[in-house]
Amino acid sequence: MSQEKTIDQKSIWEDARAILAKAEREGIETVWDRYETQTPHCTFCELGTTCRNCMMGPCRINANPNSKMKKGVCGANEDTIVARNFARFVAGGSSSHSDHGRDLINTLSAIADGNAPGYAIKDEAKLRAVAKELGVHDANTGDVTKVAKEVAERCYEQFGSKLDHLTFAERAPQARQDLWNSLKMMPRGIDREVVEMMHRTHMGCDNDPVSLLIQAARCALADGWGGSMIGTELSDAIFGTPSPITSQVDLAVLKADCVNIMVHGHNPVVSEMVLAAAREPELVERAKSVGASGGINVVGLCCTGNELMMRQGIPMAGNHLMTELALITGAVEAIVVDYQCIMPSLVHIASCYQTQFISTSPKGRFPGEIHKEVTPANAQAVCREIVEMAIEAFTKRDPNRVEIPGEPVSIMTGFSNEAILGALGGTPEPLLDAIKSGAIKGAVGVVGCNNPRVQHDSSNVAIVKELIAKGMLVLVTGCVTNAVGKAGLLVPEAAQYAAPGLRAVCESLGIPPVLHVGSCVDNSRILSLCAALANALGVDISDLPVAASAPEWYSEKAAAIGLYAVASGVPVHLGVVPNITGSALVTEVATSGLNDVVGASFIVEPDPVAAAEKIEAVIDVRRAKLGI
Amino acid sequence: MSQEKTIDQKSIWEDARAILAKAEREGIETVWDRYETQTPHCTFCELGTTCRNCMMGPCRINANPNSKMKKGVCGANEDTIVARNFARFVAGGSSSHSDHGRDLINTLSAIADGNAPGYAIKDEAKLRAVAKELGVHDANTGDVTKVAKEVAERCYEQFGSKLDHLTFAERAPQARQDLWNSLKMMPRGIDREVVEMMHRTHMGCDNDPVSLLIQAARCALADGWGGSMIGTELSDAIFGTPSPITSQVDLAVLKADCVNIMVHGHNPVVSEMVLAAAREPELVERAKSVGASGGINVVGLCCTGNELMMRQGIPMAGNHLMTELALITGAVEAIVVDYQCIMPSLVHIASCYQTQFISTSPKGRFPGEIHKEVTPANAQAVCREIVEMAIEAFTKRDPNRVEIPGEPVSIMTGFSNEAILGALGGTPEPLLDAIKSGAIKGAVGVVGCNNPRVQHDSSNVAIVKELIAKGMLVLVTGCVTNAVGKAGLLVPEAAQYAAPGLRAVCESLGIPPVLHVGSCVDNSRILSLCAALANALGVDISDLPVAASAPEWYSEKAAAIGLYAVASGVPVHLGVVPNITGSALVTEVATSGLNDVVGASFIVEPDPVAAAEKIEAVIDVRRAKLGI
Repeated sequence: MSQEKTIDQKSIWEDARAILAKAEREGIETVWDRYETQTPHCTFCELGTTCRNCMMGPCRINANPNSKMKKGVCGANEDTIVARNFARFVAGGSSSHSDHGRDLINTLSAIADGNAPGYAIKDEAKLRAVAKELGVHDANTGDVTKVAKEVAERCYEQFGSKLDHLTFAERAPQARQDLWNSLKMMPRGIDREVVEMMHRTHMGCDNDPVSLLIQAARCALADGWGGSMIGTELSDAIFGTPSPITSQVDLAVLKADCVNIMVHGHNPVVSEMVLAAAREPELVERAKSVGASGGINVVGLCCTGNELMMRQGIPMAGNHLMTELALITGAVEAIVVDYQCIMPSLVHIASCYQTQFISTSPKGRFPGEIHKEVTPANAQAVCREIVEMAIEAFTKRDPNRVEIPGEPVSIMTGFSNEAILGALGGTPEPLLDAIKSGAIKGAVGVVGCNNPRVQHDSSNVAIVKELIAKGMLVLVTGCVTNAVGKAGLLVPEAAQYAAPGLRAVCESLGIPPVLHVGSCVDNSRILSLCAALANALGVDISDLPVAASAPEWYSEKAAAIGLYAVASGVPVHLGVVPNITGSALVTEVATSGLNDVVGASFIVEPDPVAAAEKIEAVIDVRRAKLGI
Repeated sequence: MSQEKTIDQKSIWEDARAILAKAEREGIETVWDRYETQTPHCTFCELGTTCRNCMMGPCRINANPNSKMKKGVCGANEDTIVARNFARFVAGGSSSHSDHGRDLINTLSAIADGNAPGYAIKDEAKLRAVAKELGVHDANTGDVTKVAKEVAERCYEQFGSKLDHLTFAERAPQARQDLWNSLKMMPRGIDREVVEMMHRTHMGCDNDPVSLLIQAARCALADGWGGSMIGTELSDAIFGTPSPITSQVDLAVLKADCVNIMVHGHNPVVSEMVLAAAREPELVERAKSVGASGGINVVGLCCTGNELMMRQGIPMAGNHLMTELALITGAVEAIVVDYQCIMPSLVHIASCYQTQFISTSPKGRFPGEIHKEVTPANAQAVCREIVEMAIEAFTKRDPNRVEIPGEPVSIMTGFSNEAILGALGGTPEPLLDAIKSGAIKGAVGVVGCNNPRVQHDSSNVAIVKELIAKGMLVLVTGCVTNAVGKAGLLVPEAAQYAAPGLRAVCESLGIPPVLHVGSCVDNSRILSLCAALANALGVDISDLPVAASAPEWYSEKAAAIGLYAVASGVPVHLGVVPNITGSALVTEVATSGLNDVVGASFIVEPDPVAAAEKIEAVIDVRRAKLGI
């Protein structure tokens, strides 16, 4: 059993520490408490050598020379088992992003059918651009409703069984596409790749660790260039393509004089409509009439928070490890969730206060929830009802139990690729020139989650600081956004922490050295940007001075993201060691062997300073190869 | 650690025992040896309370009152974790069957395109019947190639994202369809249900055990009424719908004077073409010229063996736990595998003899294999090459190491629904009359695998003997086929072991009391038959005096089969306890609560005699309710 961590060891943030102290006072269990009871973890599971894929087992492999447990009952060794487990882990992540993407198609289709009151095509130009790419007839001039319907049809086809490649994969440089084809790594239908992955990992199918990892990469690529990219592009078409805008982060974005509604999860189809309802003057008045003089305050958590912040400037209360703490402020009237990364513990914590825990998706259910299923057809009405429930809950708030620590921190957000390229005059050339000149040494996407294995946000912040000091332009998504936002790195003034060349570029453009590009599905924006840069340079993505890092990742989705990035030619740092070390072969392939196959591999390094150095070293090699 | 089992405790069969003794003499490790080294299993994994779905864990739940490990790091309890694990287990099985079904569509499509030399539409009537059901225009009279292409298109659509229900689900009684719709259990696209299942089991999505089990059932139904049914129907169209034919089982179907080629796996697309090549006179002559005076002998293992036996009368050497032993006879020149249930240990065993281990699918890879990828386009040529390799291997056979024990046992096979109804004059009425009169008490599908947890085939045989003695008509598929075949129950003479009424029916029709209806995907035949009987009676499947049993199951596919049967209204006995007992709630739902939801549930009972009694009791209740 691990030694109990002090509050200061749990998080680097004052807002978190204040509420952790409140949790202790009020006797409320948090994720750190449960982490402690679950430590030490099962060694076999941590090594990745446990197999539960059939009923001859469960089996456990101990590959030590003296062990009797060198093979599973079927004969699979540690390499097969570790690769199978990692492959299924990736399939879980790929499925989550892609099924989220499917919900955006359903919404677009419903809009086109006139069955989605309150939703609209906010960015018709984006819709038409996507339509053109998908081969929709009359994409530029056709009736927008018809174009939307056709886009939905084409997007559904991307999930099917008949494609030999995903249309958006054509964004990648030809050399990358050729490589994927030659490796049988080119993603076909999105769903098909998941199902084939699950099939291959059934007992007595694919036992070759390399073959399994290649299919895992194909499954991950189907996420990155498929499900996630569809999620991003259609969200932009429906809710608007983000452009630079300011907002705030920190628990202090909760307001004592407001009905506070928190949206949590991933799908903007729900959170956008909650926000729309919360802006209705009648409901604002009703909130005031029950004593919330400030009206209604919608704040975000997690990735649906990123979506709202990017497009609507809605502030974010916190990231993954802040979700419980946000409720423990006692200031939240409703937490409205869709799916992914929503700790079921939130239901119990909500019940300790006036907080209504409201689930909205059949895919995200929680014992103890209030369930209000939101569909494109009923969203407007149901989200109004949800806001009414929050207003009602305000009347039950106990002001003596409310504590909102700290101060909001300002940030700049909204850096879609369109916005980034727009700021550069519409082409990637200025960015490429800055990279070629060395003013910008490279670009690094820092993405992912929090994990109680790591002091909350310590690595997320430290690595980004190190990278900008080394002259790397950093792009952030997901839970890293809050970390760097609270650290004051998402404002133009943060250019002062950047290396001189990067600082000069940022100051001339008035942008931060760390650009917020969205939610975790929006990592697809980084893929698209890499593809655009590589195509402009006439090289492959694996030639670019780029990298990615997931300092505090925890989820299956992060594993899928990491693998699609590597398979796309982007080296990926992982700050948390994946459960693959029980196989020397799989570990070697992941951290080195993949270089010879896809031109990139994983860098596993828990220390953020050392990690930044390793990332820099990889980028230096790439710069040298490019002769820049 | 378990006590080492004696050879007699390992299997009930003389052929198995003889070869187990040979294995000991020759120092060859078998599945039973590895089972012993893996025993005792991890308690948490056996209870189903281990969670590895994110990197905050791995977690383990101990729900005992004094335990500190009552929740995972995210807050999930044992109910959520057990349900998630079982759901993913089912998703693995559903994926395997369905991805197999997809390969049949690919083959049919290639045949229609003229890109599958050697393949044909052997049963045009079946193709047209399926086409009509799928809504193909001109199904009855259109050009067969065009109809085949259209059928392929419609089948691909069944895997997609746009359906609100699977077409073949319309075979089920309307009451059952209505129930599925009301429960949100109606399967939509096949792949979609798997992907949604994987999504829901990601951290922070579906935490409600009942909701998870309902989606698991939907995912399983997408297998039974989707992927598997497509696999069965298209295999019939391409390779012919089975009709009664005799064959043999036992290791003794291997022949000392022949080049012995074993096909193992599931997909007839490979095994049918191996058989076709082995029948080529030129290759037969070549076999004789190297000393194999008997020529070439193709024998089956596992489900592709069932497929060949049903349609071609090819004998089967054994079931799941016989696969290693078949190679240890020393008499096998080549084992040709596709995917599923192929123990990777076979590669090593093959290397101890002249045996060539040849894999044929990118989804089934084995370190140490010889890989010859078979596609519809190249199958004819590659399978010829494979047979040539087997002939060459014969020259390296060491006759001193060959031991073929026992004698072949005759069986009757080929009982497709068309054949069963055909034998009854084309309608289900005579069968229904026999059931109503009590001559036949009920019908029980006994299906599934072997598992070294159970003395090989002991339960498979015992339960079938008990059931026919109680007047149940038994339908068998998969690995149970070999068990009951070797026990002499697949011949008309076995009617002597049946209760008088059943005996009289069998004797009048000249059929065995145990009908072999195919491979594991062919459990879909049992669904279709149940649907036809229910529709003829004007009742739901859950009203029929039917049940299923998987006495020695081991695979994820068996879990999917069990769950789709239950969700279709068929009570299912499991002789091996699934890894769900760590949740009292999930266990209760599975073994009882489901009755109130879908009209059937699981019966978990390791003892075959007690199991038969419990099955009889369920059927008695149903008979009473029907007033028969």
